[in-house]
Amino acid sequence: MIIIMKPGASVGQIAGVIARVKEWGYRVQISEGEDRTMIGLLDSGLPVDREQIERMDGVERTIPVRQPFKLAGREMHPQNSVIQIDGLRIGDESIVVMAGPCAVESREQLLETARAVRAAGGHMLRGGAFKPRTSPYSFQGLGQRGLEILAEAREQTGLPIVTEVMESQAVSLVAQYADILQIGARNMQNYALLHAVGEAHQPVLLKRGMMSTIEELLMAAEYILSHGNDRVILCERGIRTFERYTRNTLDLSAVPLLKQLSHLPVVVDPSHATGRWDLVAPLSLAAVAAGADGLIIEVHPHPEQALSDGAQSLRPEHFEELMRKLEAVARAMGRRL
Amino acid sequence: MIIIMKPGASVGQIAGVIARVKEWGYRVQISEGEDRTMIGLLDSGLPVDREQIERMDGVERTIPVRQPFKLAGREMHPQNSVIQIDGLRIGDESIVVMAGPCAVESREQLLETARAVRAAGGHMLRGGAFKPRTSPYSFQGLGQRGLEILAEAREQTGLPIVTEVMESQAVSLVAQYADILQIGARNMQNYALLHAVGEAHQPVLLKRGMMSTIEELLMAAEYILSHGNDRVILCERGIRTFERYTRNTLDLSAVPLLKQLSHLPVVVDPSHATGRWDLVAPLSLAAVAAGADGLIIEVHPHPEQALSDGAQSLRPEHFEELMRKLEAVARAMGRRL
Amino acid sequence: MIIIMKPGASVGQIAGVIARVKEWGYRVQISEGEDRTMIGLLDSGLPVDREQIERMDGVERTIPVRQPFKLAGREMHPQNSVIQIDGLRIGDESIVVMAGPCAVESREQLLETARAVRAAGGHMLRGGAFKPRTSPYSFQGLGQRGLEILAEAREQTGLPIVTEVMESQAVSLVAQYADILQIGARNMQNYALLHAVGEAHQPVLLKRGMMSTIEELLMAAEYILSHGNDRVILCERGIRTFERYTRNTLDLSAVPLLKQLSHLPVVVDPSHATGRWDLVAPLSLAAVAAGADGLIIEVHPHPEQALSDGAQSLRPEHFEELMRKLEAVARAMGRRL
Amino acid sequence: MIIIMKPGASVGQIAGVIARVKEWGYRVQISEGEDRTMIGLLDSGLPVDREQIERMDGVERTIPVRQPFKLAGREMHPQNSVIQIDGLRIGDESIVVMAGPCAVESREQLLETARAVRAAGGHMLRGGAFKPRTSPYSFQGLGQRGLEILAEAREQTGLPIVTEVMESQAVSLVAQYADILQIGARNMQNYALLHAVGEAHQPVLLKRGMMSTIEELLMAAEYILSHGNDRVILCERGIRTFERYTRNTLDLSAVPLLKQLSHLPVVVDPSHATGRWDLVAPLSLAAVAAGADGLIIEVHPHPEQALSDGAQSLRPEHFEELMRKLEAVARAMGRRL
Repeated sequence: MIIIMKPGASVGQIAGVIARVKEWGYRVQISEGEDRTMIGLLDSGLPVDREQIERMDGVERTIPVRQPFKLAGREMHPQNSVIQIDGLRIGDESIVVMAGPCAVESREQLLETARAVRAAGGHMLRGGAFKPRTSPYSFQGLGQRGLEILAEAREQTGLPIVTEVMESQAVSLVAQYADILQIGARNMQNYALLHAVGEAHQPVLLKRGMMSTIEELLMAAEYILSHGNDRVILCERGIRTFERYTRNTLDLSAVPLLKQLSHLPVVVDPSHATGRWDLVAPLSLAAVAAGADGLIIEVHPHPEQALSDGAQSLRPEHFEELMRKLEAVARAMGRRL
Repeated sequence: MIIIMKPGASVGQIAGVIARVKEWGYRVQISEGEDRTMIGLLDSGLPVDREQIERMDGVERTIPVRQPFKLAGREMHPQNSVIQIDGLRIGDESIVVMAGPCAVESREQLLETARAVRAAGGHMLRGGAFKPRTSPYSFQGLGQRGLEILAEAREQTGLPIVTEVMESQAVSLVAQYADILQIGARNMQNYALLHAVGEAHQPVLLKRGMMSTIEELLMAAEYILSHGNDRVILCERGIRTFERYTRNTLDLSAVPLLKQLSHLPVVVDPSHATGRWDLVAPLSLAAVAAGADGLIIEVHPHPEQALSDGAQSLRPEHFEELMRKLEAVARAMGRRL
Repeated sequence: MIIIMKPGASVGQIAGVIARVKEWGYRVQISEGEDRTMIGLLDSGLPVDREQIERMDGVERTIPVRQPFKLAGREMHPQNSVIQIDGLRIGDESIVVMAGPCAVESREQLLETARAVRAAGGHMLRGGAFKPRTSPYSFQGLGQRGLEILAEAREQTGLPIVTEVMESQAVSLVAQYADILQIGARNMQNYALLHAVGEAHQPVLLKRGMMSTIEELLMAAEYILSHGNDRVILCERGIRTFERYTRNTLDLSAVPLLKQLSHLPVVVDPSHATGRWDLVAPLSLAAVAAGADGLIIEVHPHPEQALSDGAQSLRPEHFEELMRKLEAVARAMGRRL
Repeated sequence: MIIIMKPGASVGQIAGVIARVKEWGYRVQISEGEDRTMIGLLDSGLPVDREQIERMDGVERTIPVRQPFKLAGREMHPQNSVIQIDGLRIGDESIVVMAGPCAVESREQLLETARAVRAAGGHMLRGGAFKPRTSPYSFQGLGQRGLEILAEAREQTGLPIVTEVMESQAVSLVAQYADILQIGARNMQNYALLHAVGEAHQPVLLKRGMMSTIEELLMAAEYILSHGNDRVILCERGIRTFERYTRNTLDLSAVPLLKQLSHLPVVVDPSHATGRWDLVAPLSLAAVAAGADGLIIEVHPHPEQALSDGAQSLRPEHFEELMRKLEAVARAMGRRL
């Protein structure tokens, strides 16, 4: 339930309402609108006495919340969340482009890629130090050494880092290096991990599971938010279907739907969705036209030598060309890179 | 197999090669490139003697064709097909917008919609006179009376008509009224119907089945092309997945893939794909950014009264607003409405 | 709505009620229960005045029908439908096994298979004379010659014939030869074809579309039933999913669900569902254990030479072995082959 | 690669071959066939010199292994694995039935259920103490208290316990109480957790992810096996599809496929697959007919009061009835309960 305070409600009246509902056992979520304050009550299992609340000083009315994702939903938080990282703002009119290799393979490979991303106008560097792989016999990432290389690349280029964390025990380690903690698609419902990043201080990029509904994605975000971290970025990265030409099917409907249902920023990963570098550019443009707040794109200086996912990686020159086209579509949408 | 003639090959040499391979039992497909002629041999089951062909006068070399869709594929037809209807050109740099109600419900409803589509800058009028409905007890369309109303709307507004034909016996009737014959998603593999429209003189808008792969869509187009009608427009309209918020999942990857694999124009139907009018605008913009040649959109003056699919129909004022945004994105893509 | 007559209602009272509701514009469906008559009213779009009906002579009460499939559903037709073909009864305690090649390829091939099916204890012969093929360049079946060969096989072995009809114009031709008309998965929503077989005198085997819901299958059956043919057999044959080891995913949940929702017999096609002969036996046994009334199985004397679907065809010796195992499972289920 | 020793190879010859390939850096997997020993070499990335190996004393020949799941696959381990728990044997001719509530809700509820399961002839008790729930606001299980109640139920009834572990940190706690550690569908690719149970001493019941392929399930098993725990039970529990009548679609093709590809036992969970108690019995019977080694079934004494998944729970009387039918089908399949 949301309590809408009257436009002129005093700080004392607001504090009074909050104190009262907390006494009853509710947790609250405060939201400052343009001319009034809204107080959201999170699920407590307790029945709510709306009449009693509406008789309190300064209260205008109450609205039931139907969305099961109380904190991630727009009902209790109508304005967009904007997540700031260094100078970047994710979720306002700018489009943020995160780019880099699937995996950190070596210092040379990453620094070369980072410079190329920077030169082309990319805003953040992506790259996996810990890699979830279907086979226990495949390359699993460089681990902590990979994190150190990422940090060096940030120092050299100024690009903030987004990198995956795969288990709750590793959150504190990865958080020493990363600017954004990425939760991979396979871990979208790893609740211990969601809990752990919910207590971290970095923003979280939460990828939609390849088998997860949009509602489940928002409920996974709710886990993180309900543990205290309110800086979550949602990421559409393709779902599984019967189609064989692409690795997964990018669900761009998810972009306007998530923007409608939630106040959180939404980014799109066309590289993993399609598994084909030659589809990355058109789908990146489409994602921006559909309303995405950003993109996360695989770039590799030598895709044919990549240890993982080479087929879906853009060469630097194609990435540069894409950045120019994105600029034009962003402008047409009233946004900017 | 494709026979590439030398740049300076004479008309006589070309005719000679054609005559020879026809003698052997092949059907051929001629394609004029910028500086040379290509002769495609359609499957005949016969083994091909490439060496013998390469020794013929004027032949430069031969290339095996691997795509199973010989006529619909780009290998034997590298340049884009452009389909002309009155002054419209579908498949070149312009974006063609077809709009109108799901079903023709009455003269008043259709004429009102047609005028609104025209006023907003739409290029063609869509509307079903014969409706495929899951239930035998639902409204099945006005039939021939619906076609007459469509024709009247064309007369009043100048908008060409696209309308569905559901069975082979009805092709000649519908063809008397329609400028484009639409094959619905449920009929994508109705081979008798594909055969019948393959012998019609109108272009065909072929919708992807909601359970069909991209390859199957191209093979269905191949059925039409192989019966002599080379004016086929492919339409992505969403596929079935586990996601519940939308009726189907629009597969925008299909747009750049189809443009890569085939020379045929590609349009997108965001209305049926999503089943929600509030997602139609962002996905229409995304479709154009992904490279679509056109859109087919449901517009209804009074969606709440529609006999079918009201929830996915745009009101005229929203359609007008969408047309303005499309203009901007089309321009950013180097195209125009 | 269903009108339940009182146990002792007279023929005159029943006729009176029927005459009255017909006057109002309803079509009716009469169902004789153990001790009373039920009169179902099919959708007419008219509002129903239940009170007025309940005051009529001999009426006990009325029940609203919620299933959208009025004729196919169990609500208005609680007892199982049993379909008789020669001596066979499909839908009672016996399990009916239909077997034969995917396509009729030659007289020799079919007669050899028919004798093997007969020898192993199969009850009906399947085989396609008209084949729906994804490619226009693939073998499309022998056509009428195939039907003649099927008829000859029936004469030699006594096995009734089930064969596919692909278009409404061909129904009368195929009906001259076939004991059961098969509607293929791609045509499940080909309404012109459903209409045509709805007016035929043979039973219809209706295959579930590979991406159709159970409700849509029942609505497709409703089309046939509503055109007067009440002998419809439903067939589960696998649906499309992301899984790659099998061609489709056999949905055996559909068997008990269809038996619950509908009075029509249900058979299972494990050959097309899996695309692998080595899975046909275990899934045939599973289908019977799940409550299926029959099976339709591909058998080919020389699978490696089959013109279509060889990989999913059982050799006669494997079919014979399967028949023995089916016998045991059928008996455990209180049924018999 | 697999090294096949000659029938009469001596222990010394076998040890010699093993010592040699270990020197080269391989890990090995020994398998005793009826009349000979096979030595499997696990992936090491090293090239294999087959000729050199085939010249060693006692070696008959070598066979390349193509399956990516070396330890889980049948190629290197042709005989069935049988997992023993107390007196139970999972994977031989007996069918093992695990039953109990979705969640441990209270001491009374669990003890009542355990007695009912025991009375009906069930072999193991299932029940969740830690529950993965889509919403952070839903009941998450009783935690350690739930484990204690499970242990008490085991003491009272003698039924071994299978219960879920959701995070690697909890493995040692859960392992103090559980006879089998269950990995839930959402965690099938939680590699930290697979690693942790790979080092545990209890057998692991590994559930297929609801959108995971059969190959991915086997690769997840491979993670566990490659960390040293060779007692893994595979569980098919339904996959996500477009069908709406059931929660998921039970993929019974997976049963014979997994038995073909792997030596590990396979059980089926019809309760979570369908989400409907009235489909549990027919699909349990079907699973046994398809070749499953066991079942895991939800039973609750008062489904209408269950805190989770009541709709899919059998009442004790229905469970008892199912056990009788299972007996008959198991016997028809040459197996026993």
